[in-house]
Amino acid sequence: MSTFVVVGGDAAGMSAASKAKRDDPDLDVVVFEKGEWVSYGACGLPYYVKGEIQTLDDLVSVTPEEFREDRDIDLRTGHEVVEIDPDDRSVTAEGPDGEVVQAYDHLLIATGAAAVVPDIPGVDREGVFTLESMSDGRDLRDFVARSRESSPAEQPDSGPACHFLENCEGPVAVVGGGYIGIEMAEALAHNDFEVHLFQRGERVLKGFSEATSEAVAEHLRDEDVVLYLDTEVRELAGGDRVEAVVTDDDRLPVEMVLLGTGVRPRTGLAESAGVDLGPTGAIAADRYRETNLPDVYAAGDCAEARHVVTGTPSWVPLALTANRHGRAVGQTVAGNPSVGGGVAGTAAVKAFQMEAARTGVLDHDVAREAGFEPVTETIDAKAQAGYYPGEGTVTVTLCADRPTGRLLGGSLVSEFGEGAVHRSHALVGAVTEGVTVAELANYDLAYAPPFNTTWDPILTAAKVLEGEL
Amino acid sequence: MSTFVVVGGDAAGMSAASKAKRDDPDLDVVVFEKGEWVSYGACGLPYYVKGEIQTLDDLVSVTPEEFREDRDIDLRTGHEVVEIDPDDRSVTAEGPDGEVVQAYDHLLIATGAAAVVPDIPGVDREGVFTLESMSDGRDLRDFVARSRESSPAEQPDSGPACHFLENCEGPVAVVGGGYIGIEMAEALAHNDFEVHLFQRGERVLKGFSEATSEAVAEHLRDEDVVLYLDTEVRELAGGDRVEAVVTDDDRLPVEMVLLGTGVRPRTGLAESAGVDLGPTGAIAADRYRETNLPDVYAAGDCAEARHVVTGTPSWVPLALTANRHGRAVGQTVAGNPSVGGGVAGTAAVKAFQMEAARTGVLDHDVAREAGFEPVTETIDAKAQAGYYPGEGTVTVTLCADRPTGRLLGGSLVSEFGEGAVHRSHALVGAVTEGVTVAELANYDLAYAPPFNTTWDPILTAAKVLEGEL
Repeated sequence: MSTFVVVGGDAAGMSAASKAKRDDPDLDVVVFEKGEWVSYGACGLPYYVKGEIQTLDDLVSVTPEEFREDRDIDLRTGHEVVEIDPDDRSVTAEGPDGEVVQAYDHLLIATGAAAVVPDIPGVDREGVFTLESMSDGRDLRDFVARSRESSPAEQPDSGPACHFLENCEGPVAVVGGGYIGIEMAEALAHNDFEVHLFQRGERVLKGFSEATSEAVAEHLRDEDVVLYLDTEVRELAGGDRVEAVVTDDDRLPVEMVLLGTGVRPRTGLAESAGVDLGPTGAIAADRYRETNLPDVYAAGDCAEARHVVTGTPSWVPLALTANRHGRAVGQTVAGNPSVGGGVAGTAAVKAFQMEAARTGVLDHDVAREAGFEPVTETIDAKAQAGYYPGEGTVTVTLCADRPTGRLLGGSLVSEFGEGAVHRSHALVGAVTEGVTVAELANYDLAYAPPFNTTWDPILTAAKVLEGEL
Repeated sequence: MSTFVVVGGDAAGMSAASKAKRDDPDLDVVVFEKGEWVSYGACGLPYYVKGEIQTLDDLVSVTPEEFREDRDIDLRTGHEVVEIDPDDRSVTAEGPDGEVVQAYDHLLIATGAAAVVPDIPGVDREGVFTLESMSDGRDLRDFVARSRESSPAEQPDSGPACHFLENCEGPVAVVGGGYIGIEMAEALAHNDFEVHLFQRGERVLKGFSEATSEAVAEHLRDEDVVLYLDTEVRELAGGDRVEAVVTDDDRLPVEMVLLGTGVRPRTGLAESAGVDLGPTGAIAADRYRETNLPDVYAAGDCAEARHVVTGTPSWVPLALTANRHGRAVGQTVAGNPSVGGGVAGTAAVKAFQMEAARTGVLDHDVAREAGFEPVTETIDAKAQAGYYPGEGTVTVTLCADRPTGRLLGGSLVSEFGEGAVHRSHALVGAVTEGVTVAELANYDLAYAPPFNTTWDPILTAAKVLEGEL
């Protein structure tokens, strides 16, 4: 009997464990998870804080008990793996009853990513949060609940006054304009907080197109988020509790700070065992997700994967890739070697009443480094037929390689419900298959007046870009 | 100086004329249109009848004056081309001032399609409509307006009473459960008519998957449309005016009948000139849209095109293909030979508060005839992440070839706004590029909780079907 050991019980780990056991019921599957939660939808945490999801349990797709009883997986929560011994083919974990040593035939490292805490004074004060774990989500929701119980209107001395909005909850800061920052800005604004969002770079959603970033930034301002672009946070000032965000120009009193400053792969355990990291700093793995150590796999947010456009290693820590690659590893260790596919750098975000998605390569420097000659065009189109009721628009940015016409990447933004995200699915296919913009422009896409113009905005963008090549 | 003559001034014809003149301003471009309207959005007529679009002019994207003055196109409305003489390279048209003969260097036949009037007694009675032309739209809107001015509640003798609904406008019949029939059912029900929909076959939307047809049929019934499946209409009885729909089982008093029984290509003019028709009965053309006669092209609803899955000629009379192929012909005659791409048989429809789309090959007989071994699977998925608010579902049907795994076709249905149609864009790409379901299942599609489950329903469907092969 063969043993499959998994380190880390979230998306990649539990997908692998479940798939391996399902495909080969004779396999012993052991999962070590240092926390108490497994297989939870961390992507849902902003909506839990917002109040649209009522309990943390709602975010759990399969409970530890179900994994143990229904799926026959030896899931050991509260166990942190502290060492991998590849020569002995074993791992050592520290649990509530001390150390355990577990032998493996196949090992999956699925240690995920950790929130980056920027190196600025004051990040350890009370009231400074990241949003990484379920307990972070709980702390943030508690903060929201407490603030709403004691709103400044009733207790004027309880905290700093709002700067711009009347009758708001005390001002709060979000540091970082990526999707966590934007989703949390929505969650907090929805709870009547005056939200100040600080972005070090010139635009929010920097991986998306400039047109997308600008549309989202304008919408954030319309939704009363105070946006500070090109602004470095120098200090989170205060006593025990954070009291103010300090920038070069300003000292802004706040009641809370949410750090949405990115994540980094958790690679320490793997490195100690001699697992190679790749050029991105995440764990290197082949297309079967196997590392340089035989029978040791890596999947999910801790690992890199091949980019479908550049063909080079890329680190895009997102839920679908974790699920997909975890599942593929599960199939592989169950005896059916499977690849999980590359990554396209696809991402989607809801920002208040807008939605945006991106895929492939949009950054010209990245494109040039991969040997392409990038050209980018952006078009605005009505979301429905010209004569059909509705004022919605879809903005499409496409980037292509001039000599070949190959589509390299795309970014879309629209009002929420107007289809920017679902339309991006077609662009993922096009960048994955190496389709040219001329070919894309000839796609026989669906058309009906309530859904698009006769030429869907994607087709119009492809036609326009084709004309530029 | 070269002359490009176009027969027919709607989507294909005006796209070709505009593109040719834009790309080669020295070209003389002459368009003959037998009616008075050109370049109008016939797809919008149901929404004009519904009342969501206020005037027929709203459906016109470019007016005859704009074509003449801004685009320098010699557009002759009210001129019906009655003969093409390919040896003389000329056409003869009858206009208000008698016959004109016009020489051509390049000729485009874009005569469109005509509504099929079924061969049953009574179709020529007053109150029996088709929905093909702008004047059909006007007549239907007038009927709606008149009926609403004199509703049965106020004038009980004005027409047949409703059968099932209280306080409705007089009962009306829609014959045909394709998208025109369904869009018109929505338009009429929205105006408080009791709508009876008769479908000869076993299901509505027969080109879609069975799961899609069933979901839409159930929704039509929920919206109080009385649905008669597997029901042949034998007669439209009455005096001058239609008074009843007669089936084998029933005689249903109605105030109006809308025939949505399909269209057929208008090929008479072309046939007389010696233009070959293809196996579908529409005009045969190569990938440049050229017919068997040199410099004579055919595009739009009168012509067939190569199907991207079967590789065989296919006749799919829809707006995007007409625009795309017309534009390609325009480029070609302007000196830049261009193909307009194949057709995938893609279609989309809004049905009250649902939306549906289909693409590729779903019919197993058609698939087998093309040499495939079709396997079909259908899945239901939540439209958002499991924990995210909303009860919407997306139902995805995929059909693949067993030995190769190639995706042959797909059909999706969801509540309106939940993305069935925009998601179908990705399936169009997949069937066009010959992607397998295993490859599709590994696509790095966008995910965020407000838009889908981690595995978008498309991916889940591909995974499930992959498991069946």
